[in-house]
Amino acid sequence: MPKVITSFSNPLVKRVQALRDKRHRREEGLFLAEGLRILTEALETGRIPRILFFAAASVGHPLVRALIDAVEGDFGEAIETTPDILSKLSGKDNPQAVVGVFDTFETTLDMLDRSAASIWLVAERLRDPGNLGTILRTGDAVGAGALILVDECVDPFSTEAVRASMGALFTVPIVRVIWPEFLEWLRAGPGQLVGLSLQTEHGYREAAYAAPTFLLTGNEAQGLPEEYEAACDLLVKMPMLGKADSLNAAVATAVMAYEVLARHR
Amino acid sequence: MPKVITSFSNPLVKRVQALRDKRHRREEGLFLAEGLRILTEALETGRIPRILFFAAASVGHPLVRALIDAVEGDFGEAIETTPDILSKLSGKDNPQAVVGVFDTFETTLDMLDRSAASIWLVAERLRDPGNLGTILRTGDAVGAGALILVDECVDPFSTEAVRASMGALFTVPIVRVIWPEFLEWLRAGPGQLVGLSLQTEHGYREAAYAAPTFLLTGNEAQGLPEEYEAACDLLVKMPMLGKADSLNAAVATAVMAYEVLARHR
Repeated sequence: MPKVITSFSNPLVKRVQALRDKRHRREEGLFLAEGLRILTEALETGRIPRILFFAAASVGHPLVRALIDAVEGDFGEAIETTPDILSKLSGKDNPQAVVGVFDTFETTLDMLDRSAASIWLVAERLRDPGNLGTILRTGDAVGAGALILVDECVDPFSTEAVRASMGALFTVPIVRVIWPEFLEWLRAGPGQLVGLSLQTEHGYREAAYAAPTFLLTGNEAQGLPEEYEAACDLLVKMPMLGKADSLNAAVATAVMAYEVLARHR
Repeated sequence: MPKVITSFSNPLVKRVQALRDKRHRREEGLFLAEGLRILTEALETGRIPRILFFAAASVGHPLVRALIDAVEGDFGEAIETTPDILSKLSGKDNPQAVVGVFDTFETTLDMLDRSAASIWLVAERLRDPGNLGTILRTGDAVGAGALILVDECVDPFSTEAVRASMGALFTVPIVRVIWPEFLEWLRAGPGQLVGLSLQTEHGYREAAYAAPTFLLTGNEAQGLPEEYEAACDLLVKMPMLGKADSLNAAVATAVMAYEVLARHR
């Protein structure tokens, strides 16, 4: 039987709310995901929340029922609560019907099978959680093997990144590494490293892509460091016809990923 | 001589800070833009802030100097202030060196010359300010003639949209219309209306695009209404290889815009 919590001062509510903070996520090894769509996506990939908060009004919904059953069958806790508390947990004005608390998870380079996909996304010092989530979502759409986060990137388990990923956090493996580790692993097998850059004459539409292609996107403000560009097998640029000299990082990654996808076909 | 404001309770500080709110922007006909890069971009397109707040420490910077001179030469007010107040104005922890208060501006359909560009971006019920700003930034990069916002969209002058546009708010004309107006204008001249949709068998890489191409992107959660899809000359879809059935709206727009750009060339 689900427990009921209706008080803002309940210690569990406070503890879960604190997971919006990176330090607490790291200390607890837990993160928040919200919304029926994302939690159902998670369930389909075998990720069951440790704790599920749901609105009393939504208990008749079959997908909410399926989540409650999964959580209780997995020795987790399903907690009926109020829209106000759901809103407080997620930090959003219009609360979702469900908020789940999940164990964080991790993929390492040695778990990747580079023959399993022809496109791999690599992002370096990515700073914006919305960009990270959006890149995961694109990764899902193009069938990317993983998103490899190089050096100090924003936390993929941040509430904003999880939200922007629209569930792709659960479907696209995420690896966090430092550059020398990544490069050593990459060079131990087949793989073309393609960097987006302004320092090249190769147009992205004319370049030759060889699978598996690893698409490397640099930091939002600074782009790729010179030595990272030098390590690429190919640098490509995209036309910039206006006043600006760069695109949003998630946009640039997506345009490149769809180009490579079409050319591999 | 610039005025100096160092008090949080200064009425002008409160009034400018209130421009982060849509209602105040509409009442005052003013909006906020921050950062040297964006304000310099604005200046280059002839947009001079009515009020410029700058950090005392940045006054030696030639671009800050140029902004102060432009504002004072245009009968505006240049105000020296503290990093804390700049932070309060912009709502960001790491304040920019400058915050400008600009008159809102508007473009109408009859001001557009459809022979001036081969790509035009059209977004319907766009809800997320970050997406709006990112689409403007892409519009700048692909040389789009304008961003046409159809029906009830998020405010393009919201602080988050301005920020995400990285200055493209000042370089890409923005038109706000309702659907029947847009359609009437569109059909009064040449123009291919292309909608992104799941309800089609036309792959976006194989479809034929005719300039000027008007790329129509639907609401983030719901996509395009059926009757809007029916009004399109062409519906195209993009491959979705993963679990999800949609991309981020700004990402989908960008992939399409770059495809059309390449095919027109």
